[in-house]
Amino acid sequence: MHSLATLPTPALVLDRGIAARNMARMRDHLASVAPAVRFRPHLKTAKSIAVADMLFDGGRPPITVSTLREAEEFGAAGFTDILYAGGIAPQKLAAVAALRRQGINITIVTDNLAMAQAVSTAGDLPTLIELDVDGHRAGVAFDDGATLTAIAAALGPNFAGVMTHAGGSYALSDAQELAAAADQEAARAATARRLLEQAGHACPIVSIGSTPTGNAVRDLSGVTEFRAGVFMFGDLVMHGIGVCPLADIALSVLATVIGTYPERGLAIIDAGWMALSRDRGTSGQAVDQGYGLVCLSDGTPLGDVIVVQANQEHGVIGLRPGANGQLPAFQVGDRLRILPNHACATAAQHGHYWVVDGTDSVIARWERFNGW
Amino acid sequence: MHSLATLPTPALVLDRGIAARNMARMRDHLASVAPAVRFRPHLKTAKSIAVADMLFDGGRPPITVSTLREAEEFGAAGFTDILYAGGIAPQKLAAVAALRRQGINITIVTDNLAMAQAVSTAGDLPTLIELDVDGHRAGVAFDDGATLTAIAAALGPNFAGVMTHAGGSYALSDAQELAAAADQEAARAATARRLLEQAGHACPIVSIGSTPTGNAVRDLSGVTEFRAGVFMFGDLVMHGIGVCPLADIALSVLATVIGTYPERGLAIIDAGWMALSRDRGTSGQAVDQGYGLVCLSDGTPLGDVIVVQANQEHGVIGLRPGANGQLPAFQVGDRLRILPNHACATAAQHGHYWVVDGTDSVIARWERFNGW
Repeated sequence: MHSLATLPTPALVLDRGIAARNMARMRDHLASVAPAVRFRPHLKTAKSIAVADMLFDGGRPPITVSTLREAEEFGAAGFTDILYAGGIAPQKLAAVAALRRQGINITIVTDNLAMAQAVSTAGDLPTLIELDVDGHRAGVAFDDGATLTAIAAALGPNFAGVMTHAGGSYALSDAQELAAAADQEAARAATARRLLEQAGHACPIVSIGSTPTGNAVRDLSGVTEFRAGVFMFGDLVMHGIGVCPLADIALSVLATVIGTYPERGLAIIDAGWMALSRDRGTSGQAVDQGYGLVCLSDGTPLGDVIVVQANQEHGVIGLRPGANGQLPAFQVGDRLRILPNHACATAAQHGHYWVVDGTDSVIARWERFNGW
Repeated sequence: MHSLATLPTPALVLDRGIAARNMARMRDHLASVAPAVRFRPHLKTAKSIAVADMLFDGGRPPITVSTLREAEEFGAAGFTDILYAGGIAPQKLAAVAALRRQGINITIVTDNLAMAQAVSTAGDLPTLIELDVDGHRAGVAFDDGATLTAIAAALGPNFAGVMTHAGGSYALSDAQELAAAADQEAARAATARRLLEQAGHACPIVSIGSTPTGNAVRDLSGVTEFRAGVFMFGDLVMHGIGVCPLADIALSVLATVIGTYPERGLAIIDAGWMALSRDRGTSGQAVDQGYGLVCLSDGTPLGDVIVVQANQEHGVIGLRPGANGQLPAFQVGDRLRILPNHACATAAQHGHYWVVDGTDSVIARWERFNGW
């Protein structure tokens, strides 16, 4: 089997132990804060049956997905309780109905009357109303009782509850603010539930969540389920928010040094934006990580060494602007691991994971599915 | 067969006729300017045998690739003259040698002594020295005769010539400046050739090129081959540089409207950064196209309507900041096509092309290969 010294590069590396610990920590935290709240992990980052098998120890708990493809793949692998947690095109309702006929209890989401009317004629399709709790993205304003009630009425028996995603929490970096955002999300979802119930629409599901608020939640009163996804792998954006120590980042891109320019304080690796993604999610954070933070092949972060520039298949590594010191004396052929800004985006550039568990040995290759 | 009204979205759409015309125009222009110069198109954007078959009418001309995977795939499909035009890790030399043993005449590139020494012990591996002609990326300074000579000497009989990529041309947008950049690239490559020949190293190959300079080249004296890639599909970055009218962009992402917010002047489509890529290559140009320019499903651009924000699977469309007018009254279920900032990056987010030819009818599905 391969080791990190022999894998063809660039290669997506997943540390199994780190991911399993991330999963256990979030599960245990939610269980301690709110034991009655269902945990519904989001698999849009993983997109892999093998990863799900590892994370759930072979179990088939409730999950969240972001695409029909994920619903189909995880459904075929035995997951039977799936929330398709993104707005959906009316053209996809037939495919969702087909999954339900196969025994997969898939729930969908909408935030508008046009889709609610389409859903009402599409048979048995439990549907949540997406709420806007922080002005961050799609969704009905959580306190707009008239619109909520109109959509619930149009959904008729398919109306199953409400969901939110506290996307605004991604702009925070303080534990108190994150806890407040979590509380606010729960409270606002509960407000929407109350408005709907007052109008005569029973609201059995109240689904909230995000990775930043996951470890910060204190009070989940009125909430029935919690979702989070990227926490499984972690990334530099989550690190910048303050919810993920570097040692908890399970995902990295293995690369090889292909040129050194000590006189310019730069070196070039064979991982560019094609392998790292174009995501620059840390560019607005206190610490800009460029296209990723550089580590030795054993995972040791190299302080201020980042990928300062990315071409299609080449990354330029150097010191973070303003940093003191010198670039280490890399040699052509050296192996490095790059921690990603955004795990979802970086993983999506690859067709499979090379799996390690704290050492140099590659213990498995796990396939991903991309696309729709 | 599908039409653009029935394809599951998001979907990558390639207009065959536009791509074929782009190829014919570049080939004819180069043939008229410099009939003796070999044209070696870069297939890192296409990454598809079916696309290559279309572009070359089944022929197997010299090509350029950016990854070993591309070399292997195109080699297996019968291409026998391949330039692997990126710096290469020493660990990959054995795989390159294996391709050569299969009869694929693959040439590699380096810019440093460490790799040159590795190449010298790896058998028959023709190698070009990468030149830096504009300070844009890797490469030996074109006028650094001492380093050029040292690398050529280390390569020994594997030394085959020099190559450049005028990456600096991507920052230009004026035809005169582009022509000057093209002239400069050719002249500087010729300088390097002269320095090497004066030191006793015959330099049979002088390979230059880029899409921005492709249509601008006037004088290719001293050049033996010209490379360009993204011109085949075109994109908004090339449009911003001034080398690609919108009507020449062959690639788009088909999406469906899943929510409308007329009171906010926004609508949401089911194509986010996963389908469009995170590439924001137009952000530094005179016209920032957001995450892409919105067109009707027949390809008609909608003026100032762009993708103003992208989540993983959702794009928010609205008017370009500062634009006058109103967003068209989109309806849930409407089909739109998004022109990409960067064709290489957007295409890489997809596993296949849905092929059209100027109409709504989908005439084929062509597979892509991604990865390394």
